[in-house]
Amino acid sequence: MTRTTPALIAAMALAAWPAIAQDAAAAPDPAAPASAADMAYIFNTLLFLIGGFLVMWMAAGFAMLEAGLVRSRNVTTQLFKNVALFAIAGIMYWLIGYHLMYPPDWTVPGLIGQFFSPRALDAVGAGAARDGYSAGSDFFFQLMFCATTASIVSGTLAERVKLWPFMIFTVILTGLIYPVGASWQWGGGFLSELGFSDFAGSTLVHAAGGFAALAGALVLGARHGKYRADGRIQPMPGSNLALATLGTFILWLGWFGFNGASQLAIGSVGDAADVSRIFVNTNMAACAGVIAAIATTQLLYGKIDLTMVLNGALAGLVSITAEPLTPSIFAAILIGGVGGAVAVAVVPLLDRFRIDDVVGAIPVHLVAGIWGTIIVPATNPDTAFLTQIAGVVAIGGFAFLASLAAWLILRATIGIRVDREAEITGLDIREMGMEAYPDFVQAG
Amino acid sequence: MTRTTPALIAAMALAAWPAIAQDAAAAPDPAAPASAADMAYIFNTLLFLIGGFLVMWMAAGFAMLEAGLVRSRNVTTQLFKNVALFAIAGIMYWLIGYHLMYPPDWTVPGLIGQFFSPRALDAVGAGAARDGYSAGSDFFFQLMFCATTASIVSGTLAERVKLWPFMIFTVILTGLIYPVGASWQWGGGFLSELGFSDFAGSTLVHAAGGFAALAGALVLGARHGKYRADGRIQPMPGSNLALATLGTFILWLGWFGFNGASQLAIGSVGDAADVSRIFVNTNMAACAGVIAAIATTQLLYGKIDLTMVLNGALAGLVSITAEPLTPSIFAAILIGGVGGAVAVAVVPLLDRFRIDDVVGAIPVHLVAGIWGTIIVPATNPDTAFLTQIAGVVAIGGFAFLASLAAWLILRATIGIRVDREAEITGLDIREMGMEAYPDFVQAG
Amino acid sequence: MTRTTPALIAAMALAAWPAIAQDAAAAPDPAAPASAADMAYIFNTLLFLIGGFLVMWMAAGFAMLEAGLVRSRNVTTQLFKNVALFAIAGIMYWLIGYHLMYPPDWTVPGLIGQFFSPRALDAVGAGAARDGYSAGSDFFFQLMFCATTASIVSGTLAERVKLWPFMIFTVILTGLIYPVGASWQWGGGFLSELGFSDFAGSTLVHAAGGFAALAGALVLGARHGKYRADGRIQPMPGSNLALATLGTFILWLGWFGFNGASQLAIGSVGDAADVSRIFVNTNMAACAGVIAAIATTQLLYGKIDLTMVLNGALAGLVSITAEPLTPSIFAAILIGGVGGAVAVAVVPLLDRFRIDDVVGAIPVHLVAGIWGTIIVPATNPDTAFLTQIAGVVAIGGFAFLASLAAWLILRATIGIRVDREAEITGLDIREMGMEAYPDFVQAG
Repeated sequence: MTRTTPALIAAMALAAWPAIAQDAAAAPDPAAPASAADMAYIFNTLLFLIGGFLVMWMAAGFAMLEAGLVRSRNVTTQLFKNVALFAIAGIMYWLIGYHLMYPPDWTVPGLIGQFFSPRALDAVGAGAARDGYSAGSDFFFQLMFCATTASIVSGTLAERVKLWPFMIFTVILTGLIYPVGASWQWGGGFLSELGFSDFAGSTLVHAAGGFAALAGALVLGARHGKYRADGRIQPMPGSNLALATLGTFILWLGWFGFNGASQLAIGSVGDAADVSRIFVNTNMAACAGVIAAIATTQLLYGKIDLTMVLNGALAGLVSITAEPLTPSIFAAILIGGVGGAVAVAVVPLLDRFRIDDVVGAIPVHLVAGIWGTIIVPATNPDTAFLTQIAGVVAIGGFAFLASLAAWLILRATIGIRVDREAEITGLDIREMGMEAYPDFVQAG
Repeated sequence: MTRTTPALIAAMALAAWPAIAQDAAAAPDPAAPASAADMAYIFNTLLFLIGGFLVMWMAAGFAMLEAGLVRSRNVTTQLFKNVALFAIAGIMYWLIGYHLMYPPDWTVPGLIGQFFSPRALDAVGAGAARDGYSAGSDFFFQLMFCATTASIVSGTLAERVKLWPFMIFTVILTGLIYPVGASWQWGGGFLSELGFSDFAGSTLVHAAGGFAALAGALVLGARHGKYRADGRIQPMPGSNLALATLGTFILWLGWFGFNGASQLAIGSVGDAADVSRIFVNTNMAACAGVIAAIATTQLLYGKIDLTMVLNGALAGLVSITAEPLTPSIFAAILIGGVGGAVAVAVVPLLDRFRIDDVVGAIPVHLVAGIWGTIIVPATNPDTAFLTQIAGVVAIGGFAFLASLAAWLILRATIGIRVDREAEITGLDIREMGMEAYPDFVQAG
Repeated sequence: MTRTTPALIAAMALAAWPAIAQDAAAAPDPAAPASAADMAYIFNTLLFLIGGFLVMWMAAGFAMLEAGLVRSRNVTTQLFKNVALFAIAGIMYWLIGYHLMYPPDWTVPGLIGQFFSPRALDAVGAGAARDGYSAGSDFFFQLMFCATTASIVSGTLAERVKLWPFMIFTVILTGLIYPVGASWQWGGGFLSELGFSDFAGSTLVHAAGGFAALAGALVLGARHGKYRADGRIQPMPGSNLALATLGTFILWLGWFGFNGASQLAIGSVGDAADVSRIFVNTNMAACAGVIAAIATTQLLYGKIDLTMVLNGALAGLVSITAEPLTPSIFAAILIGGVGGAVAVAVVPLLDRFRIDDVVGAIPVHLVAGIWGTIIVPATNPDTAFLTQIAGVVAIGGFAFLASLAAWLILRATIGIRVDREAEITGLDIREMGMEAYPDFVQAG
């Protein structure tokens, strides 16, 4: 951040412009025109950076949402898992994931990308306008999607999964499962060839994360006491709805980066207008998800359920993620509203199968993700329902089976579940040795 | 987010540029100059999008501020109201509000805009540089102002208003009252003709929201037990000052978008410099509001009051909102400082009239909003005190009377207040059936 | 925010462009090229504004981190201090600090800049492309660094320092100590002449803040009961780890602005690529700090310590701050990882010397700041280890001695420590008269 005088800085800045770099000593021509290619490069890079930091912020959103929806005795553990998974995702995506997902060369064409080729940055001062954006900004943005996938899993498995197996699974998910699945579409693999469409990842990110969570929930089993012998379901309410609401608002905010920057370009008038469409539709789908969840819970249960409303917002967001560009506002409202209503309606179904999803990540990310993906052809004429279903089956099947295998192996080897006493006492004391709210007297 | 190789993406990005779209196969000329009109369009659109997501984030700020300032038994309800109002604002502003406020054609010239004309987006890929910015980005940004107005009301009426009447009032406020009032100025209506000036909405947003809150507080009455028979005032301290402080910081951050992007353009050197002025002045007014509240509470009460200091920051922000561009830094400090001090000083006055404003929204938004609006001519020579007063009277009078009518009708029909027992037990149990902090043992 | 029709706005926007301002009535030429100088100015200004609001957000991060790490009886006070210091920094940096740090003329050449010369804004509408960026955007950005330095101090001294002496120290730190030290490098002073390098302030901001905190901790002494007569250390766990985690995520997010915008320019392809490198390296160093802290606490203590993991993330961020541009990703991981491990390892050392640092700001900001500064030559060939050490000694020595003098004078005059009873009861009751969580039953 060195500078001596504004004039010197200006001179240095000017010196960096290609057109006059040869002769920095000469007074810059104030009328020298900007290069269209340079401008597009800077705008696109800026979009990735802004989008990337907004999606990074979603990691905080998941952390707060989940910390708010678990019981107070498990809050420290849940917070830790969210910090750890984000760090693991960063390392693994750099080490393996990025080139598996965007293979310079395929190991198995269209199916498995390239292992270990961690080139993700331009040399210092050496961007090239013909690339359209800086390599580092793309890596930064894509990394955040990988981290999001991992965030989805941690909520479902809360309050009973052991720390280290969870972290090992995160290594597998962020280094292998997510990147391989995503490569099939965004890396130009076979789904992309097939004509599948998933703009910002309703399936590639959200349903994939949801399927990984579902596999984990099945292998792990429900929390002790959740499904009682007499068939009744024991409510285990979240300990801090202010945090859960905060987390939802954070996710809502971050989603503008998630969907908006997935336009991948803002360097032309058309792209700028499209990014704006995406922002509006993303917001409207979330609004509709809220309204739908209000209506659904009022009708089904006779009262409005805040946690369902929060999940309604998120389900609306997930639903619009597969195609936030082509819908009209009205269509975006319908897509998000149905997503919100479905997410609420699915909850009793999960309970019926005794699938214990602590934060509702499966309804929100898996179910609404599938809905959003399959409805794409309703507004995007370049897509087809069958292809969309094929994409969901391929990605969902792969994410589910690969995750199932990973969880089963982990269970058979190091074990994935804390013992019953630890679950009752709380993971914070038993796994972390540290309470989240030690000064407060807690019930039960 | 599909891509195969960076080169392909770059080619696609280049193909989107108007100048070369006709012949995407040809190698782009790296020296092709960028169009000034295109660049301004992209910059302006980006400003609206960034400003919009910052103002959207203010919804979270209000939610946290209010959740922190109500008692723990009413937190779930307060959180819900903040999520719901944001969703309602989104739907209503699209359905009716936007074209009432920015009428393509007036129903009553200068007074009432156009009902139901929900065109808010450019077609996909079809922005036009001559528009100066994308339609969607403008809608996105303006929508957030509408939502802010609704957020102001929820805090004042906390801890006693029923859910559904509150939501119905939000429908009226965001669909009709705010847009009609704002159309008089920002839509080019009669106040704009008159020469009234309110840069980012000290009056159009904040005082309007404050007057709607005041009308509600008068119709609703004070909380049970707040004003005792012996004339003493029962303190009802907020349950979580960490959340309240977080909310204040969120609002402070969001305000850079609120005021900064209200410049409406950043596509020229002059506009970029002006947006910077606005950022600086906005920040300085908030700093001064804090200092003023520290001094005022120390002098008046012999101790510093954190909630008053938070309100001082917000009052400083509201004060500078009517004119964040023309003041010098020193003037911004004076404007914000007086706003902070006045907001503190007004609190006892409200109590004297037994107006029960749970979070202090009336001092902060109504009183400081008026102050900020009336002081505009001190730094902006193109304005006049009388015109400023006329604008405040017109907008304030309309917002107050229309809101009063709405609240009175709601009270006479479905009722707006929970029963006394529900108020004592807390709205979370009685209205929502869900506690915000169920694991924590609570006093009283 | 006035507008009548999009066409009118577009016309006004066009009218603002220098090339056609003389004749706004003429139809703008849609093919008129953008000026390269204008474009760079706008991009650079935008970088400062975005970077500035992200660093402003770090003030909220510190507030939440510290509110989460103190005991519940001191939360209101800690929140207040964080709001107050940010406001004080704003006023003082404007009044004195900015021109001390970036002197138009030096009072003592290279050593002491200019007192009281608060020109920080361009005139309305009057930016000049040749400056490279708007004056206001630079002031806004630089101010936030000053505020960060003050934020570092408040955590260390928590739970025992009196309010007013703390505020007076903040006046001195933000008005004098930070700006004078920073002027030696960023203002073009003697360290800059010497060849010292500190990209975004590992030493100038973080170690300086850490040394100011260390001086305060030494003068103030440890909290009552922290270091017991029998040599044992009394744990005083933080009251709300959810807030502490939130604060860490906020800081992580804000750091993209802190480091990224310290590139000072994004108006060329090379600068945009460099800002991207900085974003990636900043994130990777934080990830590595987390992993290192997980490994270190697991190995040293047999369990993972969440608060140490949070500090590991922050130490990784501080470490990379001195040079986020030149490292490869792998190098960034090493730098951040060592920073995270060292921060964990230093904690017992502080305890051995009975230096009571409530939130661990000294390990994180001082120790990792020095580490990051000294390791710069490993990746940046334009720097030298001896010069880096010289810079640390100069800045660190000055910040420490000046702070020590200030704290000693404050102790000798108005006193800096609350009495023992107030410390036991809690500062919230005794200093502020307001509890942070009044509805919750608290232990002890």
